[in-house]
Amino acid sequence: MEAAFLSWLRSQVPGHPRLQLGIGDDAAILDLASNSRCVLTTDMLNDGVDFVWGQCDGRLVGRKSLAVNLSDLAAMAAQPLAALVSLTLPRRDALAVGQQLYQGLLPLADEFDVAIAGGDTGSWDGPLVIGITALGVATERGPLLRSGARPGDAIIVTGSFGGSLLGRHFRFTPRVREALLLNERYRLHAATDVSDGLALDLSHITQESGCGALVEAAAVPIADDAHRLAAADGGRTTPLEHALGDGEDFELILAAPPEEAARLLRDQPLDVPLTRIGTFTAERGLRIKTPDGRCEPLPPRGYEH
Amino acid sequence: MEAAFLSWLRSQVPGHPRLQLGIGDDAAILDLASNSRCVLTTDMLNDGVDFVWGQCDGRLVGRKSLAVNLSDLAAMAAQPLAALVSLTLPRRDALAVGQQLYQGLLPLADEFDVAIAGGDTGSWDGPLVIGITALGVATERGPLLRSGARPGDAIIVTGSFGGSLLGRHFRFTPRVREALLLNERYRLHAATDVSDGLALDLSHITQESGCGALVEAAAVPIADDAHRLAAADGGRTTPLEHALGDGEDFELILAAPPEEAARLLRDQPLDVPLTRIGTFTAERGLRIKTPDGRCEPLPPRGYEH
Repeated sequence: MEAAFLSWLRSQVPGHPRLQLGIGDDAAILDLASNSRCVLTTDMLNDGVDFVWGQCDGRLVGRKSLAVNLSDLAAMAAQPLAALVSLTLPRRDALAVGQQLYQGLLPLADEFDVAIAGGDTGSWDGPLVIGITALGVATERGPLLRSGARPGDAIIVTGSFGGSLLGRHFRFTPRVREALLLNERYRLHAATDVSDGLALDLSHITQESGCGALVEAAAVPIADDAHRLAAADGGRTTPLEHALGDGEDFELILAAPPEEAARLLRDQPLDVPLTRIGTFTAERGLRIKTPDGRCEPLPPRGYEH
Repeated sequence: MEAAFLSWLRSQVPGHPRLQLGIGDDAAILDLASNSRCVLTTDMLNDGVDFVWGQCDGRLVGRKSLAVNLSDLAAMAAQPLAALVSLTLPRRDALAVGQQLYQGLLPLADEFDVAIAGGDTGSWDGPLVIGITALGVATERGPLLRSGARPGDAIIVTGSFGGSLLGRHFRFTPRVREALLLNERYRLHAATDVSDGLALDLSHITQESGCGALVEAAAVPIADDAHRLAAADGGRTTPLEHALGDGEDFELILAAPPEEAARLLRDQPLDVPLTRIGTFTAERGLRIKTPDGRCEPLPPRGYEH
């Protein structure tokens, strides 16, 4: 199967000026020119865990498998450069499955100017596995880490949260352009993307930064899909709970010093809204301020791998 | 499971001066300094396809998953720098399986000064999947490609071939040091590593170089294990057939101009023998010269993915 797939792939994957050598040799060669800080990330997606093959458009699965990696680069404010794609395909229909994946993946790669530098393809009797590694470079402003938040920094988020399962987890746009623009124009202290869940990913920043966070419940931007999900389950969950815990929103959480946060919120420089949802605190742990003014512990719920 | 595994991992994976940021954030940051040609490769290994979990030492599986990637870098004469490790672990025993893999992988990474830059870990009800991406840089002499062989070039190989299934496919040393030394001291035209099989991988060079190859059957260095396998199957196969088609020898095939080949064979600069097994030809396709002087087509047999 691999030979047929590789042959199809060679006709489908465009060349790229940055690729000195792409598909067809033992490894890819990438010209990084004078860029010295190469940013690498990898994600493995599995049928039955991250998607259910046959219950969704296969091209969306391919798109998502690259998009989650680009979201990780966005979380670092890195410029994406290249990706490697490893596939273990179900033996039955291996070629068609591989082609569908790439048909979803390639337009996204093109949109973000990502060179598909190579990969590995095999097949087996098991379910589909997709492994993607993405490589980018930090800009002159440097990468945004999880570890830079300081007590007093504002917690700013892009977009809205919850209910991504209704479709947004496939169709989201990784916040690469947004992260690059914000990192260039504003002095930010930390960032991450929301893959596991708003509360859980916020806790990744506080843990790495050695601080805590107080979230204002009333300020959390709740997606329409979170309301739909809450309405659908007859009041067992609230829209806020979906926003805090659903995950796969692939929005950014940013830590910004107060004066910079004020400027950011006034400017609203993105196509997507920026919202302040709380403040990083010296007191460790996550807390949430309910609309009636009480402060309660906020469990860092989300998708646990 | 992931949190427990990550915590264990952080205590196990050493820091590295080249890693500005390793495990624990959304992506890794690698300082490539002035190196501009980054070489990337990736391989995915699956339980039941590339190994059978439970029938072998799990540490050897972990070692192999990195070693095959280093062998790809060796095939390009690239200096390994870093690797990312993605695991989808069987839910039952996930932690123990992950630990065993790393216990085999880390000593090899240390031996070749490879920074483990990060990865992704999940678990499922399916079989173990290991995806590794390795990153290296081409030296000043540049990378060795598959596409540089010219008619008249000698076909030179390191080591011996066949029967790797008896254990060598787990315990091989990727020919990184050998490739770097040869590329520095000798003018070579092309290279690849033997993963699929001597004949099949040789055909990868001839296809990419637009030439053919004539192999001298009597010159092919046959591993003791190839003799053992042939003896064990009661004469249905010959040691030569094992040497040509078994694969997973992870030795190098090199194309060297005649005068350089002569110098190489005279010098024997490696700890492992260098052997000339034939000549690249203008006539396309692979042929083999039998001990009685006949030239026959050589089927590019090996492991087809």
